[in-house]
Amino acid sequence: MDQHLKETQIDSTLVYDGSFLKVQRDTVALPNGKPTIREYIKHPGAVVVLALFEDGSVLMERQFRYPLHRVFIEFPAGKIDLNEDPLECAKRELQEETGYTATDWQYVSTIHNAIAYADEHLDIFLARGLTVGERRLDDEEFLDVFKAPLDDLLSWVKEGKITDVKTVIGTFWLEKIVAGDWKL
Amino acid sequence: MDQHLKETQIDSTLVYDGSFLKVQRDTVALPNGKPTIREYIKHPGAVVVLALFEDGSVLMERQFRYPLHRVFIEFPAGKIDLNEDPLECAKRELQEETGYTATDWQYVSTIHNAIAYADEHLDIFLARGLTVGERRLDDEEFLDVFKAPLDDLLSWVKEGKITDVKTVIGTFWLEKIVAGDWKL
Repeated sequence: MDQHLKETQIDSTLVYDGSFLKVQRDTVALPNGKPTIREYIKHPGAVVVLALFEDGSVLMERQFRYPLHRVFIEFPAGKIDLNEDPLECAKRELQEETGYTATDWQYVSTIHNAIAYADEHLDIFLARGLTVGERRLDDEEFLDVFKAPLDDLLSWVKEGKITDVKTVIGTFWLEKIVAGDWKL
Repeated sequence: MDQHLKETQIDSTLVYDGSFLKVQRDTVALPNGKPTIREYIKHPGAVVVLALFEDGSVLMERQFRYPLHRVFIEFPAGKIDLNEDPLECAKRELQEETGYTATDWQYVSTIHNAIAYADEHLDIFLARGLTVGERRLDDEEFLDVFKAPLDDLLSWVKEGKITDVKTVIGTFWLEKIVAGDWKL
């Protein structure tokens, strides 16, 4: 049904193979047969953790994001290692970044954050039954961890204090889950 | 207050200057003074249009997104031209992609979709008082336009049929706006 929208690969070249970013440049045939160029980031995917405490508060991070030169409020998250299972990645990232482990994990949703120029997807998980332990940050990771009530997160989304898409979306999902409106 | 998180630029190089993507590679000082590399996409920013009809339905698009090799359900959206006002961009993109013009425009929110590797932001606008006219698609643009009830969009977010972040977030915002819970 989508033939009138579909683009088909003619050739594909890795044009930038950086320390973190890989950029692919493909020649593609448009639906009308004409050739054009598509450039995009190859990304292994990532996970996002909604770590919900019994008192209704949520585990959050504050992290400096260099491309925008400022600190963002975010949920714990991280890139999937080669061949890593997304849930295992979520458990690893939560423990490394915050020190917390969880007994109860549920898959929430998958989102695509830059469909015009990256193949990245993010798998969102809900983590409950939290116990605090020790953080194991990478040498190059600097971030603050804190707890916030879900109502504060919702206010921060509304006021534009939370603008990171995974955190905006996770906050809206948490509202639905906690209210019992959307079951996992 | 954020000195313990802040990263400072040491140098900056444009390492890939493509047809669409520009990749910057910077050397930065971490909060502990050690140098590291940050690579990121330079992006002009974009706009998203929530075009809401009086009957409660919303104007949507279906578009093939090459990096993920499939069609996505999306709100009308587009890149900001050099020196273009975001609201003017929103009006232009809505008309070009769908043919619609609107008499009533309101700013909704700004989101950041790839804070680890792009400086892109998206400004979301609500458009009401819609009148249909003629589309003016670029030569290389192929997309379907359709109307959907907001309840369907919410179901599609829940079921994972809508996964594009601007569309997930816009749908949640529309629910708040239409219910009168969040005022613009």
